Amino acid sequence: MNENVTYYPREAVQKAVTEYETPFFLYEEKRLRGNCRTFKGAFDKYFPNFRPLFAVKANPNPEILKIIADEGFGVDCSSESEAWISEKLGIKGMYTGNYTTEEEFSFVKDKGMILNLDDISMIPTIAKLGMPETISFRINPGIGKATMENNVFAGPDAKYGVPFEKAHMAYSAAWDAGAKRFGIHMMTGSNVPISEQDYFAGIVRKLFEIVADVKEKTGIEIEMMNIGGGFGVPYHPDEKSLDMDVVAKSIREVFDEQCSQYGLKEPRLIAEPGRFLAADTGFLVSRVHVIKDSYKKFVGIDASANDMPRPAIYGAYHYISVLNDSKETEKVSVVGRICENNDQFVRDRELPKTKVGDTVVIHNCGGHAYAMGHNYNGRPRHAEYLLTLDGEFRQIRRAETIENLFRTTNYGN
Amino acid sequence: MNENVTYYPREAVQKAVTEYETPFFLYEEKRLRGNCRTFKGAFDKYFPNFRPLFAVKANPNPEILKIIADEGFGVDCSSESEAWISEKLGIKGMYTGNYTTEEEFSFVKDKGMILNLDDISMIPTIAKLGMPETISFRINPGIGKATMENNVFAGPDAKYGVPFEKAHMAYSAAWDAGAKRFGIHMMTGSNVPISEQDYFAGIVRKLFEIVADVKEKTGIEIEMMNIGGGFGVPYHPDEKSLDMDVVAKSIREVFDEQCSQYGLKEPRLIAEPGRFLAADTGFLVSRVHVIKDSYKKFVGIDASANDMPRPAIYGAYHYISVLNDSKETEKVSVVGRICENNDQFVRDRELPKTKVGDTVVIHNCGGHAYAMGHNYNGRPRHAEYLLTLDGEFRQIRRAETIENLFRTTNYGN
Repeated sequence: MNENVTYYPREAVQKAVTEYETPFFLYEEKRLRGNCRTFKGAFDKYFPNFRPLFAVKANPNPEILKIIADEGFGVDCSSESEAWISEKLGIKGMYTGNYTTEEEFSFVKDKGMILNLDDISMIPTIAKLGMPETISFRINPGIGKATMENNVFAGPDAKYGVPFEKAHMAYSAAWDAGAKRFGIHMMTGSNVPISEQDYFAGIVRKLFEIVADVKEKTGIEIEMMNIGGGFGVPYHPDEKSLDMDVVAKSIREVFDEQCSQYGLKEPRLIAEPGRFLAADTGFLVSRVHVIKDSYKKFVGIDASANDMPRPAIYGAYHYISVLNDSKETEKVSVVGRICENNDQFVRDRELPKTKVGDTVVIHNCGGHAYAMGHNYNGRPRHAEYLLTLDGEFRQIRRAETIENLFRTTNYGN
Repeated sequence: MNENVTYYPREAVQKAVTEYETPFFLYEEKRLRGNCRTFKGAFDKYFPNFRPLFAVKANPNPEILKIIADEGFGVDCSSESEAWISEKLGIKGMYTGNYTTEEEFSFVKDKGMILNLDDISMIPTIAKLGMPETISFRINPGIGKATMENNVFAGPDAKYGVPFEKAHMAYSAAWDAGAKRFGIHMMTGSNVPISEQDYFAGIVRKLFEIVADVKEKTGIEIEMMNIGGGFGVPYHPDEKSLDMDVVAKSIREVFDEQCSQYGLKEPRLIAEPGRFLAADTGFLVSRVHVIKDSYKKFVGIDASANDMPRPAIYGAYHYISVLNDSKETEKVSVVGRICENNDQFVRDRELPKTKVGDTVVIHNCGGHAYAMGHNYNGRPRHAEYLLTLDGEFRQIRRAETIENLFRTTNYGN
């Protein structure tokens, strides 16, 4: 995790824009592996049996998944397609659906995933398909935290998880249906910042309360504890990365304290970062095509909100670099080509003075970026390149063609 | 335009769910043609030379486009792919890009579209490619209106259009570059409600001021006036449809008054509705798979925000019908399967008591619905069916497969 969100691989970008049509995503393998090691290393130090999973939804590119798996991570999947690609790549892990259909369970159940159930009501469905030996439950602790309202993953208004007061009923029902080994999962926050990094120890404490309650009420010993994701990364230059050693150590302390207090055998710790591994490894690289003096100044680039919707739908901040040697700055809005006024990557930000043809680099586009892309306004999604450890570029996803956009009709291919 | 947003073709839906896998979109040809006739008929009455265009971005399905073209509409395109499919279908119209690249102009320029330019700075680009005889400009009148903040299409913070004070400079420059015939365009609002239907006459008055100013300053007579879209439709049962006769008549009055006042030859009127034609003709049909008693009650359906993102990203209201005979109601949230807490089609709404297997119909999903869909969380987009005039179902788009989601990598097809 590089603290410096203003960093980007300037020379590589300079070279890439001469070779490839903009816009495109560029991922840095070195940084990706570095993030994996920072994360896994911090937990391995305190939890020799630690099981890290990557939240595929953050970046489902198969080549990205292979690198992360090579660093010792499994997968956290949330849909059939994520389980499908993981099986193709030989990566196992956990499956956390929500409002999962029978067809979905049926598709996923033989793909090497521990099923993490979102509700008691799913047990009969699973049992019908054949109860697995191991089952986990996602718990809603009744409280939640996130930097953006839409990403609240717990609390009374959240659609996720078994209410913690009913957890023991869920485990009992699973036991009765034939499950023999159990996990517990909580995913309550998103992009939790350094200022609140004691949050993770807090949710572990809450999980132990539930584990103890389940043991007391049902005799079931929970063997795995998945603390979810939500490990925040800096987007703004004023923000700092979580200190993973501090986070892991604080969780270690809660483990020691709680296992002793409740007389529990230590469960295996699992975590499922997505953004933390991938976000700062990816850059959306685009070119300036139009500079417009309207009521204010707009810099029009060839990338649009359909490539990376976070600013459009969340108002999210992304740092932007302009690849030129301008000493002057000016206040501009950097906008895309979609006919929605929210297609603005930044609004009224002081940036180096740009001209047509300049390269614009949008940072923190490695997680929840391409993955959230769409085709509104008939805009195709663009290519992804990997800057490999040996400094070469490798295309890891081609751009969509116009024909691709119509391939599910009689007109494309 | 049916006033009754609670309407849906119940018998057809009942039949369709026995034949097709949910979720799917169902469009009603009869209603679509009806909306086209209501809209075009109202304007034809007052403007014999009226030119209606359909905003393809609202629903780019080729079979939908064919029906609308058959009703006498051209197209309003905003991207290469929209121009591409229109050319394939033999439909001409207008092209309004924004921050348009040279490649984009080059692709579009021979596709039978009048180019509607978003900025003066685009003239040299166009001129380089060969100046067309006819050019239109999109004007930003400095004021705007919309029911949702993200859809403000004009005003000082809007990225669109030539500031109206500079309009004459744009026309002069186009003339100098070789253009001989001119249009003017304004798209300032979205989903304008009946309570503000005098808004359309207002923008026409504003356009005439600019037309007169341009004539006075440059001698150029503008021959076409495109008043954009933004014709609102009811989403909530308490809302009413615009009265298109009143709207068209009010515009007629402004035309008469302004042409006389400024001594202008009457320009040809153009409008480009999207939502107004398509929205209420489409229904997202899904089934209940999970009913969850958490801190409150959630009804989990097989459709998700990736099928129709308006509630997730705008908090938009959509009417929902539950196809059962329940006399009881209960307050529930209807949610999809994506791991974002905004994947809730309705929150805490009183609906007929549902059970697993019930069909849930989300209304007003014919425009800006499938078109805004995406694949986040690895979720495929689903099929589209047309209920034809003779009461048959026709598949007009198949569902995406998992392999399709990975086809731009080495793993799908």
